Amino acid sequence: MDEFSLIKKYFADLNSTPIDGSVKLGIGDDAAIIRPANGEDLLITTDTLINAVHFPDKTPPRAIAYKSLAVNLSDIAAMAGTARWFTLALSLPEPDQNWLKEFSAGLFELANMFHVQLVGGDTTRGPLSITISVIGTVSKGGSVRRSTAQVGDRIFITGEPGLAKLGLSTVNKEIELPEKEKMRCLDKLNYPQPRLQEGVFLRDYASSMIDVSDGLAADLAHIADASACSAVLLAQALAEFNPESHSLTANMAIDAVLYGGDDYELLFTVPTDKCEEMEQAWSAAFSNLSCIGEITAGKGVFLQERAGELRKITAAGYNHFHV
Amino acid sequence: MDEFSLIKKYFADLNSTPIDGSVKLGIGDDAAIIRPANGEDLLITTDTLINAVHFPDKTPPRAIAYKSLAVNLSDIAAMAGTARWFTLALSLPEPDQNWLKEFSAGLFELANMFHVQLVGGDTTRGPLSITISVIGTVSKGGSVRRSTAQVGDRIFITGEPGLAKLGLSTVNKEIELPEKEKMRCLDKLNYPQPRLQEGVFLRDYASSMIDVSDGLAADLAHIADASACSAVLLAQALAEFNPESHSLTANMAIDAVLYGGDDYELLFTVPTDKCEEMEQAWSAAFSNLSCIGEITAGKGVFLQERAGELRKITAAGYNHFHV
Repeated sequence: MDEFSLIKKYFADLNSTPIDGSVKLGIGDDAAIIRPANGEDLLITTDTLINAVHFPDKTPPRAIAYKSLAVNLSDIAAMAGTARWFTLALSLPEPDQNWLKEFSAGLFELANMFHVQLVGGDTTRGPLSITISVIGTVSKGGSVRRSTAQVGDRIFITGEPGLAKLGLSTVNKEIELPEKEKMRCLDKLNYPQPRLQEGVFLRDYASSMIDVSDGLAADLAHIADASACSAVLLAQALAEFNPESHSLTANMAIDAVLYGGDDYELLFTVPTDKCEEMEQAWSAAFSNLSCIGEITAGKGVFLQERAGELRKITAAGYNHFHV
Repeated sequence: MDEFSLIKKYFADLNSTPIDGSVKLGIGDDAAIIRPANGEDLLITTDTLINAVHFPDKTPPRAIAYKSLAVNLSDIAAMAGTARWFTLALSLPEPDQNWLKEFSAGLFELANMFHVQLVGGDTTRGPLSITISVIGTVSKGGSVRRSTAQVGDRIFITGEPGLAKLGLSTVNKEIELPEKEKMRCLDKLNYPQPRLQEGVFLRDYASSMIDVSDGLAADLAHIADASACSAVLLAQALAEFNPESHSLTANMAIDAVLYGGDDYELLFTVPTDKCEEMEQAWSAAFSNLSCIGEITAGKGVFLQERAGELRKITAAGYNHFHV
């Protein structure tokens, strides 16, 4: 079986039936042809996942594919967009058909869940790495940026940040968790849920937004820096994310929340006068939302202890080239 | 210098000034925001280049960048589109600043030449590999596919196919060429010229089109297969591409043309009644165009010798997973 047959078998043939009439030509020519609706902005993002860097060696291929697409969808969610089309550049050491079967199953499982269509790709022989590019759409001018937080805005985060890091720590045998808790954390690590519906919902409320990939501290610093202001996190609010495990100290849990990364939750700010309406509407549609702090004047990210004192947080999220 | 500073220094800051008003938000947020014109189709393509697979080890970083973008622009050219925006996913083993400086110079040299703008990317630590995705635009329904050749159409190719393969053969010390000829072949190998203006010109004439990346034989087979017909190449026409070198046999030269790949020339078909007009208009705007054969009824690709006999050509272009 050659390169073209592999692509046909595992990607073209398994590709979902067209979701709408927007894809005029999919996989198989020099480029795909897409016809977007008039009056929409396009959102474009790309992310690479490399074996043993972005996921532990021996991660199941279904999880590798799922996560590779999820982290890209999460970027579209963080702009309040709708994910529509994607390309896949897959480099793998050998054409292992069982691996490809599981990989494509994981890919299309998530793609079908969010109605996003594979429109092209490239399969090459090389060290295992996956680069996905996603194109999304959003009403003209409707996207939410990271640079537009205002002093006084409340800071919110979806879901339970920190669990993915705890999952990674169990894989690396740095901590032990009760079996049920461990499975929940591994699931968060391997199968992150892009918050696409939540992102679209937040278009009407959020003054700024980012997804948490590098870690809460680092990504909040991105919002604060880009918005030329400061952010204060409440230690008491973060303590709520401590999973019910006696083997973790409070400090370990809060470190996972602040520096863990790989959460792919939405971190966003809301003007105080919109918070109540937002929280009510949120509760009707979604779960798991936490107010964790406030945007203030100044520079940097701080943690406010119960006693009121402020501690400056260094944004030590994952960084590929810290030299 | 960390990952974010590297991206800022070598990619964001060096990025060309906005080419038009279409980029509402470039590098630096979760996704770029693009506002395409109403009534245009989008073309989407992605290609990965891996060290020692797609370019020889020790290829200059300027050439690696140039070629990585060129092969993607060539795909847009082959659809008769205009390249507009691109993303870069760069994986490299270490943050070598001299390397990055040369790489980004090569990237923006070509990007500026064709007014295509970098709008996003991802920089990761890993084995050297480059994945670029390009988005182009074309008037609604105006793209040229590979599946629409008709029996009787003439087959044309731009430029001088085979030179890139001869360049690679000199790098691999399989052949020796006179210095001037060698430099010309290395230039074709390292700095392929995407035929974007030519592609747009051909929108009015070509019945089908592809760019030659896998080799003339393999890519013509893609046109023939997709169009459900056969293609006959004239040996006499291909012999014209033989560079003036006494160290090459005629067979070596014709093999480079047929199987070499990496040419990134446009291979296209034109209905006979449009050929004269096309060739006249071509001469006024461009150079180096050759009529090399004809589309016929049947299946497969054939070479017609001077004496008239037909020899079936196996499409042995580059294939990553021939197992």
